[in-house]
Amino acid sequence: MKAEIITIGDEILIGQIVDTNSAWMAEQFNIHGIEIYQITSVHDSREHILEALKNAVGKVDLVVVTGGLGPTKDDITKKTLCEFFGSELVMHEPTLEHIKNRFVKRNIDINKLNRDQALVPDNSTVLFNLLGSAPGLWFESNNTIFVSLPGVPFEMKYLVENEVLPRLVKIGKTKAIYHKTILTQGIPESMLAMKIEDFENNLPANVKLAYLPSPMAVRLRLSAMGTDKTELEKLVETEVIKLQQIIPDAIYGYGNETMAEGIGKLLVSSRKTLGVTESCTGGFISHLITSVPGCSAWYKGSVIAYANEVKQNVLGVQTETLEKFGAVSEETAREMAAGARKVLHVNFAVATTGIAGPDGGTPDKPVGTVWIAVAGLNATVTQKFVFGDNRERNILRSGQTALQFLRQIILEESAR
Amino acid sequence: MKAEIITIGDEILIGQIVDTNSAWMAEQFNIHGIEIYQITSVHDSREHILEALKNAVGKVDLVVVTGGLGPTKDDITKKTLCEFFGSELVMHEPTLEHIKNRFVKRNIDINKLNRDQALVPDNSTVLFNLLGSAPGLWFESNNTIFVSLPGVPFEMKYLVENEVLPRLVKIGKTKAIYHKTILTQGIPESMLAMKIEDFENNLPANVKLAYLPSPMAVRLRLSAMGTDKTELEKLVETEVIKLQQIIPDAIYGYGNETMAEGIGKLLVSSRKTLGVTESCTGGFISHLITSVPGCSAWYKGSVIAYANEVKQNVLGVQTETLEKFGAVSEETAREMAAGARKVLHVNFAVATTGIAGPDGGTPDKPVGTVWIAVAGLNATVTQKFVFGDNRERNILRSGQTALQFLRQIILEESAR
Repeated sequence: MKAEIITIGDEILIGQIVDTNSAWMAEQFNIHGIEIYQITSVHDSREHILEALKNAVGKVDLVVVTGGLGPTKDDITKKTLCEFFGSELVMHEPTLEHIKNRFVKRNIDINKLNRDQALVPDNSTVLFNLLGSAPGLWFESNNTIFVSLPGVPFEMKYLVENEVLPRLVKIGKTKAIYHKTILTQGIPESMLAMKIEDFENNLPANVKLAYLPSPMAVRLRLSAMGTDKTELEKLVETEVIKLQQIIPDAIYGYGNETMAEGIGKLLVSSRKTLGVTESCTGGFISHLITSVPGCSAWYKGSVIAYANEVKQNVLGVQTETLEKFGAVSEETAREMAAGARKVLHVNFAVATTGIAGPDGGTPDKPVGTVWIAVAGLNATVTQKFVFGDNRERNILRSGQTALQFLRQIILEESAR
Repeated sequence: MKAEIITIGDEILIGQIVDTNSAWMAEQFNIHGIEIYQITSVHDSREHILEALKNAVGKVDLVVVTGGLGPTKDDITKKTLCEFFGSELVMHEPTLEHIKNRFVKRNIDINKLNRDQALVPDNSTVLFNLLGSAPGLWFESNNTIFVSLPGVPFEMKYLVENEVLPRLVKIGKTKAIYHKTILTQGIPESMLAMKIEDFENNLPANVKLAYLPSPMAVRLRLSAMGTDKTELEKLVETEVIKLQQIIPDAIYGYGNETMAEGIGKLLVSSRKTLGVTESCTGGFISHLITSVPGCSAWYKGSVIAYANEVKQNVLGVQTETLEKFGAVSEETAREMAAGARKVLHVNFAVATTGIAGPDGGTPDKPVGTVWIAVAGLNATVTQKFVFGDNRERNILRSGQTALQFLRQIILEESAR
């Protein structure tokens, strides 16, 4: 099956937002064996939307349109689809009820523009949008399926996962496919490729390996396409076991699992607790941790010691340590971690102190210099890293590296 | 002038990479008064590229093609452009010299594939690519300009800034344009639209208003296009002043400024300092604050008091407060903020305590319930909010709302 994605919105064409929706959809559809033929971004304009729809017809089996819904867009996509199909707008009562309830909850009066969001073309099937006001729409015409989705990313994703893909699977428009993403860290991509070269060369013919690099990890995706899903699953999982034997320490999780989730599992199984203290990462590590549902079972809290006096007053870092070695030093990182472990009453504490930039660098300690320390059950270990000169990326990389380092220490201490 | 961007590359259509090039180009071209009519992403295929080129002709004055260059792509774009124009490939000696020099520097022997990168269509003007091997190409045909650029982001950006835009300015193809983005919060989009309806209806004919919603704010963009940039700036800034009078409290900044940056400016000008304590937001507020370069001038640190014992031990929240009212209560929020203000030695402290979900909700305090407190110079103020049932969004909205609330309190205290 071939598909075209049409994204509607002036905000994309003036470069105000990056079209991440299309990449997400392309990946999801591809995983289900649906090839994306083209991605087209057009204006919030009747003529332009009609032109794009006409261009797509005959070339693809599925046209997914996103955006151009909602009051401020004058529901241009919905109205234009009506014109394209020669259909009429009718009130969809369940959606109207849903919109009313959303407004009642927020104590806001519903106005005509809000009510109009519940109007749908009479030849469409409504894809109920639990998370928003604009309903998804499904049309079938001339052997082509047309789907209209809101442009708000989480609403679009909800509808693709819960309405669009299940329907495509049901009507047999997708291939049987099984895929598993293996999350690795600690081995650079090119070294990893060499390490698993034999493994890759010996994969069954219908199992494919893809490298999906990301700023913080290397993700490996094994996918098999065929007819019998159970068979495919067995095939892929057999290969995953082989991979686990080749790079046991590098694998920190599977699928969409985060590094923090992996750490949480390790801590829960060993009944240990975690605390954090951050200087240069400024709360980012704590945010990654507390994004994990249920983290209160293993995470107690953090001290964001941005100013030196907080390092001293709250964590008990020695004044002479700061004076002699500086805030960005192995010694300070070590005292921060040990102090946090004590103050927060936890088994493990991870600390970061560094120069995120853009200012504050010196020849000795350039922007990007970061010390990470982990105070564990038996000892405090430290490591120095030097990242780049971009503040945002330094925070990102320091945070993820600190979690990686923490994970290794937890594994090592557990192995004792 | 109207333009179409055609991006070539299977990696975009399988969702492996997000097409950030197009957003960057769209913004740059827009700033220069060149309207992007459409962005089209196509496969690395001769037929598909030809189809996209033919579709663009007659609709736009400028076609910018990126990607599909270099040995691994078999230089498909260059070859297809030759076919499209009926031209021949000829060797471009300065580019060949440049490629040779690049290889000499890296001690690598040049092969035929590398040499072939210096071949260019005989009807093209070469846009010399100082940063890479694949040259940019400029064609003029049938009143349309065609530009081919490499897909590597920094090479593409270099060529747009140093070759493409200067040429377009020189031949008078750009317009004077002035944009200003006004950042608002606290008023939902549909209500804001009604509030400023009259303002919008009375805008000068060449000033346009666009709504750019984001999860945490509504951004308004005023743009004017014409001939005299100084005139346009005056025109837009006059309208901005009108808007400031209609919604004075809702505007927190302009352009790419974040809420945290706005708060930083207020604090710097009043020489006050800030501390944070977070329970449900778990470090996210601190992360937003420390993402601001130079925040150490006004931000000292945070206590992420996720577990009750951290609220008690580090912040001094009373045991009986937690027992009587619970961790998610006005009283706990108040004691957290007051405690953080004291422990961190700051003028203002903001506190959050709530139920991010998915678990932990009760009929009285459903998931999404959040208490926010700000301990200021004269008093501690609190407010309750009820968000939704999605953990990620609850953290996001609680964090931004806390900053918003903090901003209001700082403004009020400064007004005293």
